[in-house]
Amino acid sequence: MGVTWAIIYGERMTKTDDRRSRRREQTRARLIDAARTLMAERGFNEVGIAEITEAADLGTGTFYNYFSSREQMQAAVAEDSVEKVGDILDREVSSLEDPAEAFAGSLRHLVRHALSDRVWGGFLVQMGAAHPALVRILGPRARRDLLRGLESGRFTIDDLDLATTCTFGSLIASIQLAMDSEPREDRDQIFARAMLRMVGVPAGEAAEVAARPLPEIDLT
Amino acid sequence: MGVTWAIIYGERMTKTDDRRSRRREQTRARLIDAARTLMAERGFNEVGIAEITEAADLGTGTFYNYFSSREQMQAAVAEDSVEKVGDILDREVSSLEDPAEAFAGSLRHLVRHALSDRVWGGFLVQMGAAHPALVRILGPRARRDLLRGLESGRFTIDDLDLATTCTFGSLIASIQLAMDSEPREDRDQIFARAMLRMVGVPAGEAAEVAARPLPEIDLT
Repeated sequence: MGVTWAIIYGERMTKTDDRRSRRREQTRARLIDAARTLMAERGFNEVGIAEITEAADLGTGTFYNYFSSREQMQAAVAEDSVEKVGDILDREVSSLEDPAEAFAGSLRHLVRHALSDRVWGGFLVQMGAAHPALVRILGPRARRDLLRGLESGRFTIDDLDLATTCTFGSLIASIQLAMDSEPREDRDQIFARAMLRMVGVPAGEAAEVAARPLPEIDLT
Repeated sequence: MGVTWAIIYGERMTKTDDRRSRRREQTRARLIDAARTLMAERGFNEVGIAEITEAADLGTGTFYNYFSSREQMQAAVAEDSVEKVGDILDREVSSLEDPAEAFAGSLRHLVRHALSDRVWGGFLVQMGAAHPALVRILGPRARRDLLRGLESGRFTIDDLDLATTCTFGSLIASIQLAMDSEPREDRDQIFARAMLRMVGVPAGEAAEVAARPLPEIDLT
């Protein structure tokens, strides 16, 4: 009997908790969406807390129920934006039959998106430099693509974790370099070639794979 | 006549300036040396300004004639330490006849030194994440090694700046990964293999080059 009650009580608690946590999740998402839109218009550091809550149609005080500081909110917006792009790439690019093309395609899209949407590019660089959140979010995806290439015999990789970490270290550094340099159409391809070679695809083949037409997807 | 006087006056000024700036340089170097020694003993953030000036046998006030803040001093210590290692690698490793071996050898030494001297490894990671000082100091050296490999036909590189930046992005990320992971004897070789492949050395050959005996040098 005690056990049954515990289960029923537990279930009721869970439902109430679920509803409450769903509502919290929705309010948090509204704040993040509003912040992202304002940041995209004016820049990462140019948006005040009062503006965000107003755009989300919430009281200013609400903000601190969800974020302890402006910095924490900025980190949440960056993580959310990178996560969304990761999800789209998962659906649209990672399923390509050739693992080399899947790996290269995701990297090319990341470079292109970072360079066409500078606020998003800034999210990526900031996350990469400041804390391991980037590797936490995109790392497992890259690792899975690399493993597929390894198992199919297409890639030569000595250590999957090292290959994953080198990919992201290179990605962040390349985006920073590209942002500070003259625009160039083929940055995504040049980067993808270097990464394909890094995982053991011969140079000629890497150039061919990196030049294949990209699956067209909308990352905005 | 006017010109001659200007030259003489200029020379005299220069000599006095030289003496003064040499003395400043020496005092600054004493502070940096003292700070590095204390940091190596106790950790990067565990050393006070008064301890540093005392160890350098200078008055506490002297510190602020050379550094505007504790952070600026820490950055100077990190840069100086990385520069010193860069100089040694220049002399001892970069001159190896095979450009692939020179490139791999420098990277292997950097990984090994960062993992055996954690304070120094911390310098590297901190410099890489916080500002482009690392690329400013070690970048031209790596670029020169890469250019040599490219010109000799040993490397396939589409863009030298990108290859340089990917090398350092990967280096920092790999050292961070290694510092947080179980010790492993062959991290330097595994990293060097990935970088050699990245610049177009075929996988089998990259493994052979990365396993060659390292020139023994003292980086401490």
